[in-house]
Amino acid sequence: MSSQPSHPTLLIPGPIEFDDAVLQSMSHFSESHVGPGFVATFGETLSMLRKLFQTTSSSSQPFVISGSGTLGWDLVGANLVEAGENALVLSTGYFGDNFGDCLKVYGANVDILKSTVGSRPQLPEIEQALKSKKYKIITVTHVDTSTGVLSELKSLSETVQRVSPDTLLIVDGVCSVAGEEIDFDAWKLDGVITASQKAIGCPAGLSISMFSGRAMEALEARKSPPASYFASMKNWRPIMQNYEAKKSSYFATPSPQLVHALHTALSQILTKPLSERFAKHAEVSDKIKKAVTDLGLKQVASDPADQAHLMTAIYLPESVKGTDLLPKLANSGVIFAGGIHKEIATKYIRFGHMGVSVTDPARTDISKAIDALKGGLSACGYQTS
Amino acid sequence: MSSQPSHPTLLIPGPIEFDDAVLQSMSHFSESHVGPGFVATFGETLSMLRKLFQTTSSSSQPFVISGSGTLGWDLVGANLVEAGENALVLSTGYFGDNFGDCLKVYGANVDILKSTVGSRPQLPEIEQALKSKKYKIITVTHVDTSTGVLSELKSLSETVQRVSPDTLLIVDGVCSVAGEEIDFDAWKLDGVITASQKAIGCPAGLSISMFSGRAMEALEARKSPPASYFASMKNWRPIMQNYEAKKSSYFATPSPQLVHALHTALSQILTKPLSERFAKHAEVSDKIKKAVTDLGLKQVASDPADQAHLMTAIYLPESVKGTDLLPKLANSGVIFAGGIHKEIATKYIRFGHMGVSVTDPARTDISKAIDALKGGLSACGYQTS
Repeated sequence: MSSQPSHPTLLIPGPIEFDDAVLQSMSHFSESHVGPGFVATFGETLSMLRKLFQTTSSSSQPFVISGSGTLGWDLVGANLVEAGENALVLSTGYFGDNFGDCLKVYGANVDILKSTVGSRPQLPEIEQALKSKKYKIITVTHVDTSTGVLSELKSLSETVQRVSPDTLLIVDGVCSVAGEEIDFDAWKLDGVITASQKAIGCPAGLSISMFSGRAMEALEARKSPPASYFASMKNWRPIMQNYEAKKSSYFATPSPQLVHALHTALSQILTKPLSERFAKHAEVSDKIKKAVTDLGLKQVASDPADQAHLMTAIYLPESVKGTDLLPKLANSGVIFAGGIHKEIATKYIRFGHMGVSVTDPARTDISKAIDALKGGLSACGYQTS
Repeated sequence: MSSQPSHPTLLIPGPIEFDDAVLQSMSHFSESHVGPGFVATFGETLSMLRKLFQTTSSSSQPFVISGSGTLGWDLVGANLVEAGENALVLSTGYFGDNFGDCLKVYGANVDILKSTVGSRPQLPEIEQALKSKKYKIITVTHVDTSTGVLSELKSLSETVQRVSPDTLLIVDGVCSVAGEEIDFDAWKLDGVITASQKAIGCPAGLSISMFSGRAMEALEARKSPPASYFASMKNWRPIMQNYEAKKSSYFATPSPQLVHALHTALSQILTKPLSERFAKHAEVSDKIKKAVTDLGLKQVASDPADQAHLMTAIYLPESVKGTDLLPKLANSGVIFAGGIHKEIATKYIRFGHMGVSVTDPARTDISKAIDALKGGLSACGYQTS
């Protein structure tokens, strides 16, 4: 039984429901950010991130910085691409488009490759784009939270390696890390940025990322200094290295309570093989997708191969408005999210299924949510069977 | 009695000791960042910040963004000064110097006005500098955490108004807000940036700031777009306005738990007149300064009028090393900070005295710290009387 007060179950694509121990870590008594106790906690947290991202290369560099997931885009834009350099952005929704906007702020020449809502750019067109000019970086949104479209990383990486091996491959894993498989070394990724509040299961407030040795070399080889102060990897990298070596160090004050919560969340995740965690998320997702299909509903991500395992973006029946359905779900104790992709915002809803709601056998969040969805649609006058 | 587990009392110049209710708010169950419950909490928090900064002008704009206090410098550098414009930075230590470094990253032409360690630039030289060229902004560190030097804002503002009224006056109040008097409207300030973990008494992880209508006009009048994405006030301003109007809105995910803790901390602070809070911090500071003087020790801030009321930077006796003394204090249950100003780093220690350690009559933190300091110095061989 959770020790948390009774509350509606939060099943949006992040923030998600929290384990009690993670939430209790948020109330950790005050510690110095440069004292040995917290330095050890932060150092262990960074080392655990290497395991989460499946990287054993000593040149890989984890970062944990106070901020939203969005700050990860600035880390990429201000450090790994310089004004006038080319960036190829693969977009599968709102978040891909905005990643591109962020890169433009830092002066990158951004080409956005996108397809119709619910699908994703295909390898032949990506290959063609990569051959058309020299790109410093290519970015891909692993799961675009606005559409639930899952991008394929392994074959994308093989294409980049073959066609444009100097291009850095950067993954927005905000809505995928700790739920979808990511094999940082084997897939030769150069950067994965994420946030604390999605499948990692920690409260929001931390930008979490992993960059390759190659990305760190690109940082050092910059002709101009990083284009941000707070988001400068040159400012943060020695701090992260010191914390991981259990040495105190200061650039800007981290959040000890959030780092404690992240430490607890990662410790829990790493008690089991990651493969088991990914499989569990896939199994529960399949069950949800089947229920959605059985209800006669379509997903925004049209091809089953492109459907994320951590969330489901569901088109509403024509007769049902999200503004009618979502409050009914809330009355049943389940919070879903509305649409966010501007082309279809009012036509769909989003159901997040990650973290303890999926992995904790004591919780019945998912079946409760499916029942609530059925009941809510019915109450909106939609015949569900 | 605190419900927190027994731990050494943290008396560094931030983070500080927390009230139980604030820490409990950190464990708030998960809520949607765009749901009505959290939107109301965030909106009330922004409105309470107006009271904390003593601004009733509807054109003043509060911001609460996930990040460290340092992010506030980027807010100023990326939004209120454009590449090639002039910035005058008044420096009284490490943090003033680094604020200047941050502004340079965004292309400002930075002139730093500083004096010897422990003192501060005086009005005649500031006036002379302001007359020498057109400055878009002037920045001042209200309390430089590296030296404990307090800058005077009221007469500085009068000078700026008289000599260079178009120049925006920006205050780094990271180590002053909620402890030192700041009268935003009356003193015609254009920006005050701070952080959650100092005198406000909330865990670290939030950049908190207030900007004037004039600063917002300067933002809108920019010739170039803001030079950051995550730190773009143009991206955040409508979000803050929506939250305060209790409307849901999204740019990047805020940290509901930290915002709940900030809400609790501000609610507590605002139960009493701010003047009482400032007076209490001054009274306790006077007591600490007297004890330090009675021990035969000097402060880094040489002129009593320039000594902060929220911290004391204390020169060590020549015979005592900080690396010997600080562990002895820790053994007595009190955590002080070492030096951070590079010119004198090994020669002094820092004692933070703000928040509940000062205001909660049930706590004996300050007298325990003074006793520990006496005992520690004595154990290091220093004759204290």
